[in-house]
Amino acid sequence: MPTTTALTRAACEKLDAGDPLRHARERFRIADGTVYLDGNSLGAMPASTPAAVAQTIARDWGTDLIRSWNTAGWANLPQVVGDRLAPLIGALPGEVVIADSTSINIFKLLAGILSRPALLAEPSRRFILTERGNFPTDIYIAEGISAMLAGRYQLKVVEGGALVDSLDETVAAALITHVDYRSGFMHSMSALNLAATRAGTSIVWDLSHSAGAVPLQLSENGTDFAVGCGYKYLNGGPGAPGFVYVRQSHQATLQTPLSGWFGHTDPFAFALHYAPAPDIRRFLCGTPPVLGVVALNAGIATFDGIDLASLRAKSLALSELFWQLMDDRCADLGFACVSPRDKTSRASHLSFAHMHAYPIMQAIIGRGVIGDFRQPNLMRFGFTPLYTRFVDCWDAVATIREVVVSGAWRDAKFQARNQVS
Amino acid sequence: MPTTTALTRAACEKLDAGDPLRHARERFRIADGTVYLDGNSLGAMPASTPAAVAQTIARDWGTDLIRSWNTAGWANLPQVVGDRLAPLIGALPGEVVIADSTSINIFKLLAGILSRPALLAEPSRRFILTERGNFPTDIYIAEGISAMLAGRYQLKVVEGGALVDSLDETVAAALITHVDYRSGFMHSMSALNLAATRAGTSIVWDLSHSAGAVPLQLSENGTDFAVGCGYKYLNGGPGAPGFVYVRQSHQATLQTPLSGWFGHTDPFAFALHYAPAPDIRRFLCGTPPVLGVVALNAGIATFDGIDLASLRAKSLALSELFWQLMDDRCADLGFACVSPRDKTSRASHLSFAHMHAYPIMQAIIGRGVIGDFRQPNLMRFGFTPLYTRFVDCWDAVATIREVVVSGAWRDAKFQARNQVS
Repeated sequence: MPTTTALTRAACEKLDAGDPLRHARERFRIADGTVYLDGNSLGAMPASTPAAVAQTIARDWGTDLIRSWNTAGWANLPQVVGDRLAPLIGALPGEVVIADSTSINIFKLLAGILSRPALLAEPSRRFILTERGNFPTDIYIAEGISAMLAGRYQLKVVEGGALVDSLDETVAAALITHVDYRSGFMHSMSALNLAATRAGTSIVWDLSHSAGAVPLQLSENGTDFAVGCGYKYLNGGPGAPGFVYVRQSHQATLQTPLSGWFGHTDPFAFALHYAPAPDIRRFLCGTPPVLGVVALNAGIATFDGIDLASLRAKSLALSELFWQLMDDRCADLGFACVSPRDKTSRASHLSFAHMHAYPIMQAIIGRGVIGDFRQPNLMRFGFTPLYTRFVDCWDAVATIREVVVSGAWRDAKFQARNQVS
Repeated sequence: MPTTTALTRAACEKLDAGDPLRHARERFRIADGTVYLDGNSLGAMPASTPAAVAQTIARDWGTDLIRSWNTAGWANLPQVVGDRLAPLIGALPGEVVIADSTSINIFKLLAGILSRPALLAEPSRRFILTERGNFPTDIYIAEGISAMLAGRYQLKVVEGGALVDSLDETVAAALITHVDYRSGFMHSMSALNLAATRAGTSIVWDLSHSAGAVPLQLSENGTDFAVGCGYKYLNGGPGAPGFVYVRQSHQATLQTPLSGWFGHTDPFAFALHYAPAPDIRRFLCGTPPVLGVVALNAGIATFDGIDLASLRAKSLALSELFWQLMDDRCADLGFACVSPRDKTSRASHLSFAHMHAYPIMQAIIGRGVIGDFRQPNLMRFGFTPLYTRFVDCWDAVATIREVVVSGAWRDAKFQARNQVS
């Protein structure tokens, strides 16, 4: 029950009216009656995506056919869209390329680093460092690499808070996700990059839950290698390709075992032996997934002209409001926020533990308030400042309160719990 | 000049009128005035694709959002579409899955085989066998695996005719492309599978230039492992995902180092350690590229109700006609066919060497006859029986003759030669 604040739905509407980013919502199509707080899992559909993909299919493929590899620029699309993404993550032109999935891209970089002869010759560097709370696919890929390299490296899985101290001379490489997919906790990239440099090792960063959500400065903060997801905050659509970032100075020396023909310096020479491109193209592998890259391009275009500082400010204002509303209106209902209280340590989603998290989430989804459930007992809500409104926070919390107080959650038809992070 | 035959354009029209597959062309949209003989590189656009993809974008993503992983069946799409493809390649349900690119899929299978402890413990098996004429990305990926496995295996690259005799007890695994991307030469899968079995080794087959072009019987012909391309004869669109086939009996024992979360036995349990699915799903890696899989599904649907024997019969009739027309009408112009004369040894494309192959190809493309150029001196023409007509062969050869005899090829604006195989 509101006691210490005077928050009302009208007050939230006022916040929306004064929001400098309020017009960005027009760049998306979101159904009336839907409160979408899951853009951290699958970004909403940009208004421009249907036409962009339709044109690629009907005109470029349908009419120009194979010629479109040249005339429509398909062959260079991974670099062109990578360059468009670069400013969102503080990278330079030529440092980002769109390719494959996040899992595959982790393999490219981590296996490339761990296969370096100089590193193999240093047996004391035997650990692949990561954290227990990392997104599972990151750890799974690291396990696959470790197995393929015949146990030369072992996984060292520590608690997140122990990462800095664990970056020592026994570490061959670290695989760190910037933002925890459950709690929203955000590491300091600068601090960890510095610790890695001091320890003479490298970090492969997974930016899946931060790219497009918080301003990133990969060039300035000393990041050497990173990957990220195209279908979350970047709005690229279901299963959109991911991205690879490699600092310019490392591009000529890091070679990935995923040495497909699009990473060749001259793919159409059809040479007998692999010779990697001298630049970011070497982190391509097979033929680029054109439809996916086109859709991702439309997703990234939703950030055109958006000031990232304003984006971050609104993201934090939204999550602060949501948290305050939960405190005010649902304090008696058994929820406990597991996200960092300190704003500088969290990204753009909040998670609340509840013993009935799963059926409550199903019940509110049934009422058009879409967050997601994460094992074992978390309700997760993502705030995507380009299209999330302050009234959305009000309506979501009101719906949560209603389904819990009324007991409606007990009747919720439990849907399959398979949702894609 | 026609001497021994009475072939005319009218005779070709008559062949089209009597073609039992003539109505299949209505399943595609091909611009008037285009003679498309490059479906072996990028299949033409199915008429149903724009609506299928538009629905996935606007309805499933745009309206149902994250819920579509369940409600629209996105989560199972790679298996569902794999099962739809299975009969085209003579595989059983549950033996095929749609995923990633051909290059990535080769890595999954070949690296999985070569990482098996039992094989690693047999140092006399030291070769990855392949042929010199293999498509480059196949060899490049094998090189990447060999390097990552620290030289435990070396590539052995032989001429195609030497593959059978080279399958001996020194071979750890073979990587063989069924159909040569230049000549169209087609290996006998049965004969090579038998030789591999006798030698106690495995073949990973690349079916990129045969799936959808010739009837395949993977179950019957003893194939254990295969990959293939979605954007050629399967009409999946530019950069469509590829497919993975693993014989049922091998699925539980082959583990790929590309161990992403969608290959986990229970991805949404978010378990700390990787445990591969017991079935074909273990050959998935990251989140499936939904738009690409949906488009590929529409491409595979163009084969619905088509008898593969009729498809093969028409394919051979088209290539025989084309070759005969080239012999009849262009014999004096310096072309030499490099494809096998024996019909049982070739798939569904023909290649002709010519000292001016590149500008001639550009000139005929400028006149709407689309084949492609392949290094060093080849003009390649693919015959896709679902939509190629007999008059297309006539018109193509007439155009070739015209640009050569008139000298128009000298004036052809040379476009960039980068085309995607």
